Amino acid sequence: MKAARLYDYDPEMNVTLRIEDIPAPTIDSPNDVIVKVGAAGLCRTDLHIIEGVWKDIMDGDGALLPYTMGHENAGWVEDVGSAVTSVKPGDAVICHPLRSCGICLSCRYGHDMYCEHGQFPGLGLDGGFAEYFKTSERTLIKLNTGIMPLDVAPMADAGITAYRAAKRAAKLLHPGTSCVILGVGGLGHIALQCLKHICGGQIIAVDREPGAQVLARELGADAVLDGGPNLIEEIKDMTGGGAQVVIDFVGELGVENICWKLLRQGGELIVVGYGGTIEIPTLELVVNEIKIGGSLVGDYIELVELMEMNADGKVKMHQTEYKLANINEAIDDFKNRRFTGRGVIVP
Amino acid sequence: MKAARLYDYDPEMNVTLRIEDIPAPTIDSPNDVIVKVGAAGLCRTDLHIIEGVWKDIMDGDGALLPYTMGHENAGWVEDVGSAVTSVKPGDAVICHPLRSCGICLSCRYGHDMYCEHGQFPGLGLDGGFAEYFKTSERTLIKLNTGIMPLDVAPMADAGITAYRAAKRAAKLLHPGTSCVILGVGGLGHIALQCLKHICGGQIIAVDREPGAQVLARELGADAVLDGGPNLIEEIKDMTGGGAQVVIDFVGELGVENICWKLLRQGGELIVVGYGGTIEIPTLELVVNEIKIGGSLVGDYIELVELMEMNADGKVKMHQTEYKLANINEAIDDFKNRRFTGRGVIVP
Amino acid sequence: MKAARLYDYDPEMNVTLRIEDIPAPTIDSPNDVIVKVGAAGLCRTDLHIIEGVWKDIMDGDGALLPYTMGHENAGWVEDVGSAVTSVKPGDAVICHPLRSCGICLSCRYGHDMYCEHGQFPGLGLDGGFAEYFKTSERTLIKLNTGIMPLDVAPMADAGITAYRAAKRAAKLLHPGTSCVILGVGGLGHIALQCLKHICGGQIIAVDREPGAQVLARELGADAVLDGGPNLIEEIKDMTGGGAQVVIDFVGELGVENICWKLLRQGGELIVVGYGGTIEIPTLELVVNEIKIGGSLVGDYIELVELMEMNADGKVKMHQTEYKLANINEAIDDFKNRRFTGRGVIVP
Amino acid sequence: MKAARLYDYDPEMNVTLRIEDIPAPTIDSPNDVIVKVGAAGLCRTDLHIIEGVWKDIMDGDGALLPYTMGHENAGWVEDVGSAVTSVKPGDAVICHPLRSCGICLSCRYGHDMYCEHGQFPGLGLDGGFAEYFKTSERTLIKLNTGIMPLDVAPMADAGITAYRAAKRAAKLLHPGTSCVILGVGGLGHIALQCLKHICGGQIIAVDREPGAQVLARELGADAVLDGGPNLIEEIKDMTGGGAQVVIDFVGELGVENICWKLLRQGGELIVVGYGGTIEIPTLELVVNEIKIGGSLVGDYIELVELMEMNADGKVKMHQTEYKLANINEAIDDFKNRRFTGRGVIVP
Repeated sequence: MKAARLYDYDPEMNVTLRIEDIPAPTIDSPNDVIVKVGAAGLCRTDLHIIEGVWKDIMDGDGALLPYTMGHENAGWVEDVGSAVTSVKPGDAVICHPLRSCGICLSCRYGHDMYCEHGQFPGLGLDGGFAEYFKTSERTLIKLNTGIMPLDVAPMADAGITAYRAAKRAAKLLHPGTSCVILGVGGLGHIALQCLKHICGGQIIAVDREPGAQVLARELGADAVLDGGPNLIEEIKDMTGGGAQVVIDFVGELGVENICWKLLRQGGELIVVGYGGTIEIPTLELVVNEIKIGGSLVGDYIELVELMEMNADGKVKMHQTEYKLANINEAIDDFKNRRFTGRGVIVP
Repeated sequence: MKAARLYDYDPEMNVTLRIEDIPAPTIDSPNDVIVKVGAAGLCRTDLHIIEGVWKDIMDGDGALLPYTMGHENAGWVEDVGSAVTSVKPGDAVICHPLRSCGICLSCRYGHDMYCEHGQFPGLGLDGGFAEYFKTSERTLIKLNTGIMPLDVAPMADAGITAYRAAKRAAKLLHPGTSCVILGVGGLGHIALQCLKHICGGQIIAVDREPGAQVLARELGADAVLDGGPNLIEEIKDMTGGGAQVVIDFVGELGVENICWKLLRQGGELIVVGYGGTIEIPTLELVVNEIKIGGSLVGDYIELVELMEMNADGKVKMHQTEYKLANINEAIDDFKNRRFTGRGVIVP
Repeated sequence: MKAARLYDYDPEMNVTLRIEDIPAPTIDSPNDVIVKVGAAGLCRTDLHIIEGVWKDIMDGDGALLPYTMGHENAGWVEDVGSAVTSVKPGDAVICHPLRSCGICLSCRYGHDMYCEHGQFPGLGLDGGFAEYFKTSERTLIKLNTGIMPLDVAPMADAGITAYRAAKRAAKLLHPGTSCVILGVGGLGHIALQCLKHICGGQIIAVDREPGAQVLARELGADAVLDGGPNLIEEIKDMTGGGAQVVIDFVGELGVENICWKLLRQGGELIVVGYGGTIEIPTLELVVNEIKIGGSLVGDYIELVELMEMNADGKVKMHQTEYKLANINEAIDDFKNRRFTGRGVIVP
Repeated sequence: MKAARLYDYDPEMNVTLRIEDIPAPTIDSPNDVIVKVGAAGLCRTDLHIIEGVWKDIMDGDGALLPYTMGHENAGWVEDVGSAVTSVKPGDAVICHPLRSCGICLSCRYGHDMYCEHGQFPGLGLDGGFAEYFKTSERTLIKLNTGIMPLDVAPMADAGITAYRAAKRAAKLLHPGTSCVILGVGGLGHIALQCLKHICGGQIIAVDREPGAQVLARELGADAVLDGGPNLIEEIKDMTGGGAQVVIDFVGELGVENICWKLLRQGGELIVVGYGGTIEIPTLELVVNEIKIGGSLVGDYIELVELMEMNADGKVKMHQTEYKLANINEAIDDFKNRRFTGRGVIVP
């Protein structure tokens, strides 16, 4: 089968994925499931993987290379292991990105992403930028009638990462408060839609790109700003002293040290994007009693919930499609923000 | 001034309010505020007051009669006591129904309705079915620009009672779960609108009246049922085993013992309407791990939040207006459900 | 092997378990684990099973009879299925009573007890009043060093049922509030110990038995009452208006309709015992804004947490041991409250 | 009356308070209360005030100088304004440090410390290092029978600051998790006692001072460490990967950048001490999904709750007393950590 594989990490990103013919995966253990890929989302984490940001964490000596990238996958069940009972060949499914064990204490607490034995296809082992890929029963959610894999693939990771942050934000937002979304890209535009449906607060979207600003307005942001040099004052004015919640989908390029200044007393910053370093005096933290916290990929149940919202027509992925053969073009367009929303690879 | 006053309790409700000329109220203490009434909502509790349901709780020997009813009030500040700083004559305001002390422990916990020294104008002391009524600074919220007292008066009690229940429900509802609203009247239609904006669950509205069903559909209920004899089976089928939350705005006439049967395992019934008696085996409570809890009038901050949602255009009171002189006709129409939404009295 | 088996349901409880020789269980599926029973707790639910209370729910036509009872088990791993990796023969373990699937949505939400495919050894299939019994990997927790199965067996069900209720109560109790525990038996004495360590509220224990009262005092109850006819007044006086939380471990014999009268405004009744029927006017629920909710057996993580508290010396099972051959004497003593705390069967 | 007053800010702290004779305060408004000071705690914030850390926030041009310091006050009511009803002369009271208005939205949400019109006696206006000081009715809590002002004065600020952090921590700690307390001084030793009573987690206390280590052991810490260079490894080993919660009572001197490295995945750092600057890569925040948040002085209800725990014998202030005349010696001893627990000034 065809697959797009990574052979080298490069901080400058002067590498491309190689499109190769490799053997299709096969069932090895009772819980394995082979999925015929319908679509696979392209994620900022893919850029960071290529840059080598995850090398030390996942692949200290680079010995895992080469592998097929792609961790936002949806498709149809092709084959199942002997213990699999909840899906059968032909079922349309979306795949949570992490293969969790279901036995360790983190799994029992429902923290799938903290699984002690978790595996992440597309990061150190073969993922979904290919015709087929292998996952396990516990990652799968059957699609609702009428939903196609191509409609939802990036929900598997971009979607739930945004939804997890939005769900946490919504608990902190009551009518009369505001949430600032920094970055209305593949994640931000999903968070915006979720927040519109799960909380009564106002949503202020910030993005430098005119295309993203248009998208934010279409999706119902109460206000849209371009993130100019007066952002802090603008937000303080609009919100009467600061936002209750800020979600930072950028996390680098200086944004990470602006966003906590947008908070009101008692406010919370949810950091999703990464790359930069936050510097904050403890006095600021204490006097304003603000919180700063990272938010990771969503858990399995968050994908279940997001798919329900999608089936109800409340949340839709705004995306641009590329053939698997053109994946390097997709990556280049992504780096240069030539599309709004998400890029999706179709085998 | 003109005022509509209650002279007798009568379980059969064969009494009418007397429209009388009485002296307007005056400032007695530093925190008093006199409000020129713009509009006053008519509440099911008013019917229950006339029936004498509250007599034992509030007025054991009937010595408080006669008094002016009306506890859902909005208008303009007419006069203020010497210690009042947050409002001034001419301000358009809505009035939380309870005059709370702000000092007792319940007030300090934010539980205004549990105030040890609380007074409730319209129930045992003069309320707002009149040209003027007296309240205190702590009850008042200034209206947003462009909002008129007549637009919002029933928010003061019907609105926040519905919002309090909806807010509690929303915390229990995630996408993929359902909430059943029993009774789409003055409270139910507000709860429905709130839930549409603050949670990702499905909303199933139930009402026997065709007019209420039409209203529920217009307001965006995901499903509308007529509450026929197969209600339990219908709900179980639609929800795959039962609703996560049921809000009962009826609480009598047998509804109170149907509604807990609509719940799924782990579900919660929120009781707002009253009059009947719930009978439930402890085995049912334990095996299905369901909860049943009453919900009272909302606190001050809930009125603040609801007014924010109203100003944002998310929640609107559906109402029918009556002149103060016609209040007994309004009461009769209410008893016989001749209008949908809320009845409002205009002095 | 020896096993104590139920052959008939009898509301009058004039039946005894038969001690028989039956074949030991064997591994049938990859996740099975055979446990050599070290001890098995005797539960009030066992009495209710014999009475037939669970017959309609679990065994409508009685076709599941006969079976070996016993659902509070601890012991040593004897044999494991091919897919089991987290325990090995010889490990000392305690067994969560429910075999949950780990795949269904309830399991994914961490609600083990709501598992769509759950099995409950000891209730409709063979349990632990025997030398060996069969469970699955997902039920097992390895015992901390130095802890013996006999020390903890009833923690598996009595313990976590009490802990689940106590944990829910603790979230509602802050310093200055009170919790009433009705019934200081096998469950109540565990709840009391847990509450002493996980919340700052006062604990008032109520039991008619002098032995239980002594135990409650030894375990640190702030007050101990005998549940006489003035209980409501006594509690109202001691608590300045009522308890914030009441946990009812009786749930029958009239207690179920006293306990909600012990609550203060905003209070919550947690029902664990069952058998009776609660009758409550909706007006009471609404005016006092009280909640009534059932609490079931704890989930797996609650057993993990309880075993941590046990290992830390914070919670200890107070128990009386019986040989398996004497199980019917144990049942008779239990019915007649001839021991305090819990009865435990040792094979 | 005698009062200890600040005349200059000095980063080097080469200034002393002047003990002067000034007029006693008098009632100016209906809610005022004059308190005869029984005792006043000495706080690290007093050191920071003298250093000028709060100058820019509270007193940009220094025009508020000179004033009497002291914000942790308890004593007896001496005189009350005309509107005061909940206390009377002679009542023993403890005083929440902030005079909040009770009307603004922050007050209505129960966030006393965010009050828009709040005043803080001892920081910019006269406080309690004197024979009398003036506060308002809303700050006061009557002491339980048998409790003397000298027993509890530092509870008014040190106590509730520690309790607020502990209460927030307790919600995140279940049995099997650990909480690290960095700094067992006036605040840390209170947090330790609170946590022992309100959560089931393990408590690891860290302090460089042998006296503080002894105190931590006496108060029941599960482990006590000296904060040496291997602290991170020690904590990771003891906790199996990191603590669920870390409370940093130091917040400077490099501690602020060690403490977030002590967290496990999903853990939370609560910052109480201040002075340093946290530097943390967004990648660390996201991958480990950790949170960092400041915690301010507790609200009024937290002081109520803490006084209940004190009356129950669960929390006791460990303190050293100084005469008002010796306040500069007390300050010097505090700077040089010559006492454990809290220093208290007695007029």
